[in-house]
Amino acid sequence: MPLPAPDTATDITELARRARAASRVVARSSAQTREAALRAIAAAVRAGADEILAANAEDVAAATERGLASAMVDRLRLTPTRLDGVARAIEEVAAQPDLIGRLERAERRPNGLEIARMRIPLGVIAIVYESRPNVTTDAAALCLKSGNAVILRGGSEALRSNAALGRAVAAGLEAAGLPAAAVQVVPTPDREAVRAMLQLDELIDLVIPRGGEGLIRFVAEHSRIPVIKHYKGVCHVYVHAAADLDMALAICENAKVQRPGVCNAVETILVDRAVAPAFVPRLCARLAGDGVELRGDATVCALGGDAVIAATDADWDAEYLDLIVAVRVVDDLDTALRHIEAHGSDHTESIVTGDPAAAERFLHEVGSSTVMVNASTRFADGGELGLGAEIGISTTRLHAYGPMGAEGLTTTKFIVRGTGQIRP
Amino acid sequence: MPLPAPDTATDITELARRARAASRVVARSSAQTREAALRAIAAAVRAGADEILAANAEDVAAATERGLASAMVDRLRLTPTRLDGVARAIEEVAAQPDLIGRLERAERRPNGLEIARMRIPLGVIAIVYESRPNVTTDAAALCLKSGNAVILRGGSEALRSNAALGRAVAAGLEAAGLPAAAVQVVPTPDREAVRAMLQLDELIDLVIPRGGEGLIRFVAEHSRIPVIKHYKGVCHVYVHAAADLDMALAICENAKVQRPGVCNAVETILVDRAVAPAFVPRLCARLAGDGVELRGDATVCALGGDAVIAATDADWDAEYLDLIVAVRVVDDLDTALRHIEAHGSDHTESIVTGDPAAAERFLHEVGSSTVMVNASTRFADGGELGLGAEIGISTTRLHAYGPMGAEGLTTTKFIVRGTGQIRP
Repeated sequence: MPLPAPDTATDITELARRARAASRVVARSSAQTREAALRAIAAAVRAGADEILAANAEDVAAATERGLASAMVDRLRLTPTRLDGVARAIEEVAAQPDLIGRLERAERRPNGLEIARMRIPLGVIAIVYESRPNVTTDAAALCLKSGNAVILRGGSEALRSNAALGRAVAAGLEAAGLPAAAVQVVPTPDREAVRAMLQLDELIDLVIPRGGEGLIRFVAEHSRIPVIKHYKGVCHVYVHAAADLDMALAICENAKVQRPGVCNAVETILVDRAVAPAFVPRLCARLAGDGVELRGDATVCALGGDAVIAATDADWDAEYLDLIVAVRVVDDLDTALRHIEAHGSDHTESIVTGDPAAAERFLHEVGSSTVMVNASTRFADGGELGLGAEIGISTTRLHAYGPMGAEGLTTTKFIVRGTGQIRP
Repeated sequence: MPLPAPDTATDITELARRARAASRVVARSSAQTREAALRAIAAAVRAGADEILAANAEDVAAATERGLASAMVDRLRLTPTRLDGVARAIEEVAAQPDLIGRLERAERRPNGLEIARMRIPLGVIAIVYESRPNVTTDAAALCLKSGNAVILRGGSEALRSNAALGRAVAAGLEAAGLPAAAVQVVPTPDREAVRAMLQLDELIDLVIPRGGEGLIRFVAEHSRIPVIKHYKGVCHVYVHAAADLDMALAICENAKVQRPGVCNAVETILVDRAVAPAFVPRLCARLAGDGVELRGDATVCALGGDAVIAATDADWDAEYLDLIVAVRVVDDLDTALRHIEAHGSDHTESIVTGDPAAAERFLHEVGSSTVMVNASTRFADGGELGLGAEIGISTTRLHAYGPMGAEGLTTTKFIVRGTGQIRP
């Protein structure tokens, strides 16, 4: 059943209070109950497919009528196949091992105290996101799996789709005996509701904004609640002097072309001067053949031929999210490290090299949240790194750094078992 | 050599920029270099004892003249013995195992990628604290050990002491070949400098305020930088129906009396109704004999005799930090859990019981950062819990929860080693 529309700060506060109360119930629920709830939610999504697809069709029609860009409309659209993917993603999270209550780092102190850490949920998570409706269920599933309550505030263009998905989630929760308020979809497009929500640091423990840089900056600037975020991904591949050039070519191509619109796609390729004459012409020919626009420094322009246009200073900081790449020749590993330090976004960088010493220096000295050797930057993803589903990526170092899965939605408390110890 | 006084936001920004640059050098230094620097700092503190004690004597004289409370003057005062303790504390941190560069949770993915997490420093830490000058070196040591740079802003009453200690730290850093700017003492009592510093979220990664609730609220309210903090410790001991009453008596006394002025001292004792007639009279007699003022509910007043005065509602939320304790009789474990949920501060709670099922419920259901069975709350301390020295205690769940040592000043990045993998 849909919750009453919160038109004011009072309403959103009331919604957050319900979330806080529900979070205590979820935190104390058993792993079996949470898994059963997730499976019931997946079943409710399948059972409610007609209703969800009808609501989505209304959103898509309204967005098309308003002239939303076709790429955005495509992100918004659900199909029977995509909806099946939504349900399967929930079932995959259900099947993950449960973390809550797990004891870690047990230790016996000289005075006999038994110390351990017990993994516990964060409490109430708010997710603020844009058009893709699958975020509604993906985020709900991860938050529930990790014992949290969640408040979901999607984009206004997906309001009907998110509400319909929210009803399926509520039905699944209630079927498993958990409170429907454990997952609440904010049922208003009112931006003031978001602003009011971001003040509720006593009721909400963490906000995760997902979407464009504008949305993320809005959340970061207005929030009194801790925010986990990344603004952008200016990812680098550095082709070292000792690189296998065939491997480097395959990695550069994959990192740029396989899915150019995402944050872990490469935006700048650094080529060591030692291999530039051999590598740059092949790189430019290959990427131009893929339809990529190349923007190079003077050396790259000279070596790459007509395919390359001259880069400006702005190109070294650009997140294109498109079939465009900046290419620069660097003198050596140190120069590459300095370029990344000056222009990187702490997201993902990869070195291609056959020299173990160079690889180790790169792994140690690059401070980014994911650092790779001989692999495509496209692997910087919670699923690919073995975290299960991903709730977001953090490029700030507090709490989580890099891709973040269910464990990132938890913390630990200290557990102490004594036999009457007092402090001398 | 002392740094120029930053009287304005420009100066504090410049100081933070130097810290950021120094943090990169410290992050890349070897564990051996950091350990050598800490030992050199301890040696410089010993060698500079006369200068440090003279500076401290000036601070103490000025504080006494200004009429600072004698307890505060005592916290400010350094003696040869205390200064030796300062040096030894640095040497203890030097001897701790080094965390930086450590690989954790290594895993091989089905596609052959080798994934691990590498422990890295946070970057630049700011510590804002009050009178005790030993925080200057304790915090500097932990931040350096964990590969960070640190900005130290102590209380105005300790300005000369902290500057003298800062000179010893700088000498030790330089002796080990590390930049003196890795540890900077803000050399001005100007509160505007703190306010300006708290805006520098691009240059400072974490702020830790240590001191009274007023200081902590000032920092939390003005900071754009993440803050790790606890406002207060309203710690509970719950004497369960199945408690060993002799053990309960010893734990309650120790938790209140051994050091009443600290945040892990007990402030409210909950007594199960089943044992109240047997326990409350003994508790009141024992604590009254220790000079503790008892504030009880009606049952406690009836059972405890003249030693008890009637508690008001405010007593259940009070952090006395003194020889005062609130005592309440509760019906059962559920009532105790509800009392703690309503009045606790997420710091530390302990149950005294011989019933394993009650102990497990308490450990699982109390959400505080440290939860104990049959032990004094006074063990909620980084040293006692095996973390080595403690940089602070967090009662919010992001990043760290509970006592926090050197590891709390670090995070991990993802390390990926491939052999040319690209994403299909």
